[in-house]
Amino acid sequence: MIYLDNSATTKPYKEVLDTFVTVSEKYFANPSSLHSKGGEAENLLGQARRSIAQLLHVTPSEIVFTSGGTEGNNMAIKGIAFQHQNRGKHLITTGVEHASSYESFQLLESQGFEVTYLPVDETGSVSIEDLKKSIRPETILVSMLHVNNETGTLQPIKEMGEVLKEHPKVFFHVDNVQGMGKVHLPIKEYGVDLCTISAHKIHGLKGTGVLYVKNGVTLSPLFTGGEQEFRKRAGTENVAGIVSMAKALRIILQEMNAKKDHLITIKKQLLNGLKNIEDIEINTPEDGSAPHIINFSVKNVKPEVLIHALDEKDIYVSTRSACSSKQGGASRILLQMGLGEQRASTALRLSTSYDNTKEEIELVLQVLQKEITNLKKVMR
Amino acid sequence: MIYLDNSATTKPYKEVLDTFVTVSEKYFANPSSLHSKGGEAENLLGQARRSIAQLLHVTPSEIVFTSGGTEGNNMAIKGIAFQHQNRGKHLITTGVEHASSYESFQLLESQGFEVTYLPVDETGSVSIEDLKKSIRPETILVSMLHVNNETGTLQPIKEMGEVLKEHPKVFFHVDNVQGMGKVHLPIKEYGVDLCTISAHKIHGLKGTGVLYVKNGVTLSPLFTGGEQEFRKRAGTENVAGIVSMAKALRIILQEMNAKKDHLITIKKQLLNGLKNIEDIEINTPEDGSAPHIINFSVKNVKPEVLIHALDEKDIYVSTRSACSSKQGGASRILLQMGLGEQRASTALRLSTSYDNTKEEIELVLQVLQKEITNLKKVMR
Ligand SMILES: Cc1ncc(COP(=O)(O)O)c(C=O)c1O
Ligand SMILES: Cc1ncc(COP(=O)(O)O)c(C=O)c1O
Repeated sequence: MIYLDNSATTKPYKEVLDTFVTVSEKYFANPSSLHSKGGEAENLLGQARRSIAQLLHVTPSEIVFTSGGTEGNNMAIKGIAFQHQNRGKHLITTGVEHASSYESFQLLESQGFEVTYLPVDETGSVSIEDLKKSIRPETILVSMLHVNNETGTLQPIKEMGEVLKEHPKVFFHVDNVQGMGKVHLPIKEYGVDLCTISAHKIHGLKGTGVLYVKNGVTLSPLFTGGEQEFRKRAGTENVAGIVSMAKALRIILQEMNAKKDHLITIKKQLLNGLKNIEDIEINTPEDGSAPHIINFSVKNVKPEVLIHALDEKDIYVSTRSACSSKQGGASRILLQMGLGEQRASTALRLSTSYDNTKEEIELVLQVLQKEITNLKKVMR
Repeated sequence: MIYLDNSATTKPYKEVLDTFVTVSEKYFANPSSLHSKGGEAENLLGQARRSIAQLLHVTPSEIVFTSGGTEGNNMAIKGIAFQHQNRGKHLITTGVEHASSYESFQLLESQGFEVTYLPVDETGSVSIEDLKKSIRPETILVSMLHVNNETGTLQPIKEMGEVLKEHPKVFFHVDNVQGMGKVHLPIKEYGVDLCTISAHKIHGLKGTGVLYVKNGVTLSPLFTGGEQEFRKRAGTENVAGIVSMAKALRIILQEMNAKKDHLITIKKQLLNGLKNIEDIEINTPEDGSAPHIINFSVKNVKPEVLIHALDEKDIYVSTRSACSSKQGGASRILLQMGLGEQRASTALRLSTSYDNTKEEIELVLQVLQKEITNLKKVMR
């Protein structure tokens, strides 16, 4: 199996699953229970929080455990909007966000908030000038992803953060679901106030995630109830999932350190190979993109057909964001980039992990070349 | 270890963990991905949905997967309130709900909704007459728990459902987190529109749950984003957690069938034993309570001290709802029952599973007797 759909989800590390099982068996008690078994579970939870905080260079009280990226984005965006609406009802984002952010903004618009969707250029990137121009006295939030999940395009988070340092009352939320473990993002240095992470994109388990919430930032919780997670997120904590997420984060950051160049090498290999295939247009920019995502369109070929053909060779790729892949039609992201209807509806996404090898990439390129040639023949 | 804190959380069944590991390893793909590995994950998800629907005697499209009981209650209560507020802003609940419901209602009150908190009698139960009197043309929701998590008291869900059948526009939400697998609740027969279940209370895994949403019932989602879960709950599905929850539900319902009498037997044994201990007052009503929860107060003894003493003998019990146990002070539930400050701040809760034995209960009674006598001596 050659798995090139790591932006949709990743295979859990063996250590992650082992940890999950151990914690679920031995430390199953409720961390809020007053007895010593509850205390042991609470200690594990605290250790995981400290360990994640350390890995992200933030403080433990800034780590809020969630059920994943969708919850994190919803909590950050709706949470800030509802909590601070008395100060202003203007929000800024981009037109290329993940559905979990995009739909949250659409909902807020229907509830009387005003949203500026910053335009992107043909690389998928927003401009600092546009951001500057869009900030108003009533702006309370700027929210954008770090690494685009369809194209791998990087947003200029550092520069955005600098602009926003001059507007200390505007909260800055970054969706780092795709960037975590692949592209370094120094949360504190860049002035980020809220940052979303999802465990299943870093070889952790589905159903767990982190929302970084800078100390002092208040938000209206999505879940009210018990006093867990500093009163920001009620509910019995998924201790085993959380402890194994701490493990996943530690491992992927080690991998990032050790194998960053490997990812870049196989990306180049992929890019060079794809360029030699007739009728392929690369949608991922060469500069300013993450090392693990390549998006391209194949003229006049339905992406579903190619996915199926690759599938038969035990190669797994996708069309776009997994959660919108069943809608069919053109990609909202590629349309926003101005690539046109035709290119936006024939796109494929290949997303690698540190485990993919050069040999795998070579094979994928061969199969792609052959399948595309065959399809073209059939279609003629 | 004698674990009598099953209302706080339960130990996962071995089969549940085994299933979780298999699915996480072999079917880790994103169920929304178009390739065949995604299809396999999607099939598993569908099977789990059908299996849970069958076990609950409802249809698969009525099963919405959540991260647990807190999310389910928040989603049901806020979701109905926000979606249907144009029809009316009056909500009915009780004063003895779990924090995840109670705090949701408190929040809604602060946002202009009007909430009637039905009073309870000294058993913790609400009256049908009070319900009838409180329904108004602008009422949109009645929400209450089936089995109280502190006392085990049953609410008259069947009778409530009958009253509400005459008010077809009023939604009926039942929090069945504590009742599932312990007390039968025929969702359809009782006219329930929304029903909350949490996996970790039935020997499933933390971080998974179900909200039953009757076909045709619309609600405003907590998570917007992808189109998962019939657009009621966005986010990559925790497939392994969900499949293992289906397993947990199947097993606990088999256990309920086979060992119902065992639970009743050890509850009687506990009750009889407790009655013989000086200075104990039983807070759980003899009639109309679930078979697995016993709540009692020990005059002039701080519950934390007893928890600690039992802990040293490897016996684990709790004071009240786990998520409010760290607040200290009197129990809101027992106060509502009119038991008074003193009794409400000296309560212990013992909650059994089908695995607890008569021998364990015997031992617990002996230890309790001894410890209480000792504590009384020290205090004199
Ligand atoms: C950029 C981005 N944000 C948010 C999400 C949502 O994360 P989750 O799948 O954990 O809900 C995803 C993935 O689906 C993503 O790629
Ligand atoms: C009656 C009741 N409702 C809801 C909940 C919340 O469920 P969860 O712990 O899965 O968030 C609990 C337990 O904590 C409960 O006992």
